[in-house]
Amino acid sequence: MILTVTLNAALDATWSVDSLRPRTSHRVESARERAGGKGINVARVLGILGHDPVATGLVGGPTGRRIRDELRTARIRNAFFEVVGESRRTLAVVSRDDGDATVFNGRGPFVASAEWQLFRRHFAALVAGARVVVLSGSTPPGLPPDAYAQLVRTAAAAGALTVLDTSGPALLNALAAHPDVVKPNADEIAAVTDREDLAEGAAALRALGARTVVASAGADGLHAVTTGGTWRAKPPERLSGNPTGAGDACVAAIAAGLEAGSPWPEILRTAVALSAAAVPCPVAGEVDFPVYHRLLTKVAVERIPPTGPEAAPA
Amino acid sequence: MILTVTLNAALDATWSVDSLRPRTSHRVESARERAGGKGINVARVLGILGHDPVATGLVGGPTGRRIRDELRTARIRNAFFEVVGESRRTLAVVSRDDGDATVFNGRGPFVASAEWQLFRRHFAALVAGARVVVLSGSTPPGLPPDAYAQLVRTAAAAGALTVLDTSGPALLNALAAHPDVVKPNADEIAAVTDREDLAEGAAALRALGARTVVASAGADGLHAVTTGGTWRAKPPERLSGNPTGAGDACVAAIAAGLEAGSPWPEILRTAVALSAAAVPCPVAGEVDFPVYHRLLTKVAVERIPPTGPEAAPA
Repeated sequence: MILTVTLNAALDATWSVDSLRPRTSHRVESARERAGGKGINVARVLGILGHDPVATGLVGGPTGRRIRDELRTARIRNAFFEVVGESRRTLAVVSRDDGDATVFNGRGPFVASAEWQLFRRHFAALVAGARVVVLSGSTPPGLPPDAYAQLVRTAAAAGALTVLDTSGPALLNALAAHPDVVKPNADEIAAVTDREDLAEGAAALRALGARTVVASAGADGLHAVTTGGTWRAKPPERLSGNPTGAGDACVAAIAAGLEAGSPWPEILRTAVALSAAAVPCPVAGEVDFPVYHRLLTKVAVERIPPTGPEAAPA
Repeated sequence: MILTVTLNAALDATWSVDSLRPRTSHRVESARERAGGKGINVARVLGILGHDPVATGLVGGPTGRRIRDELRTARIRNAFFEVVGESRRTLAVVSRDDGDATVFNGRGPFVASAEWQLFRRHFAALVAGARVVVLSGSTPPGLPPDAYAQLVRTAAAAGALTVLDTSGPALLNALAAHPDVVKPNADEIAAVTDREDLAEGAAALRALGARTVVASAGADGLHAVTTGGTWRAKPPERLSGNPTGAGDACVAAIAAGLEAGSPWPEILRTAVALSAAAVPCPVAGEVDFPVYHRLLTKVAVERIPPTGPEAAPA
């Protein structure tokens, strides 16, 4: 079983306006609201792939109830833990004139220390049944800085593999717990390692504790540094659309591959094809299945020979 | 008793951002959500004035439940009628850099014909206990164009006085039912009568059926054309702040004055002072009570002599 963790779950709304003009009033058309947050989007993609993941994390208040209701509608197995504070909302305001989105993200509920301790117990019980645990997204106010490190250690102690997709201090503080895979993008790597070069940044994250680093570079694909070697995987074509959900689709492919025990080149091929197939979709958590199958056999996966003293020509 | 009607009730949210920049992502701080819509804001101001109004209208869905919950918290007597569709949300995004607000208004739930007929019966039962009925704001999709006219006739048949604060076709279509008072602002008058002059526009609205027209002209105060004469009432000073709630405060003063049987000059003095006292408040439905009392005795109310053939010098 794959367990996805969304500590800062959200209710995602999309509103369309004719044209966004600051300091004026707008009449909006609102689309259906969906449960969101990266872990939930990963669970959605896993569902599309035929898996039956369990989604956990923290929700609260009336917005939390709507998140739960929407998960039920989406047939995602829901093991969310309820807190007193109110879950956040996110809003994408899409202008009909240019199709561009302006995004607003709430911070999330304040989570009391006692609530976090109770969630840790809840998580420990859930993780006993999991082979892979996906930990995705930002953390709400009130959590300890090493919240992800605590969960990674609990999952590892239970024998589960961990995939972590977060950024900033939450990423940095989790590395000491040796997550099996971290999946930062180029900007996130640069922000925490101060390295612009993807390979150098990935090496720095591994030096800090990550076992495998799968760095995503948008349309340039993935750069993966694992204990067994380094690979680069590139999509065969550039798709236009909304790249928001590509990272979550990539993480879903990694989790599914780890659960199946697939070799890294195969995981990366799937991850690149699935990420690219998320781009034509208007919202995160969806993939264009025909696009996925068309791209799957065309992804180029290349092994990168080791560099450094041990690999230098004699 | 004063009954306020809000056919398109809303849940009003205020989010603050550092600076609103289209096509980017924003981290938002959200303030408490409040029940909104003009009729609800009128009921809030009436509550501040010591009245105990009843608020009715249409709400639906989870957002409707939150509107009801918030009314309970605000101690407003709630006689809302539940529909299947979901109540709208409104959002004001306030930039911390310049204090300006960018506003988004949902359209509201689709109201089925059968629901409207049931609401009319519900309204007829409520109006039996009302001396004054306030009908405020936009109407949700699905209502007949003469929805307000139907309610005005029902109220009048029950012996209640009606105060209507709406705009566009909803205003125009209601005039044939002879509402006792309509309170459009200068822009709303111009939009439905094609007259830029306030006095001419007010006369046009009376010709179409309104008994009294109280036209609001922002910081220039009120221009009231009644069966007993025409008055102009001006605030003694300009206040800066948020003018959103000024119209609702004005309507609350008119409703309270009609219920008490006050003469028009006194109603207008109260209405101008109360409107001005709403401006320093950050959200609609509130008034600054010390400001109200300070202004009350300083409002200038001037009788305008009749013009036209019968008033021309011999």
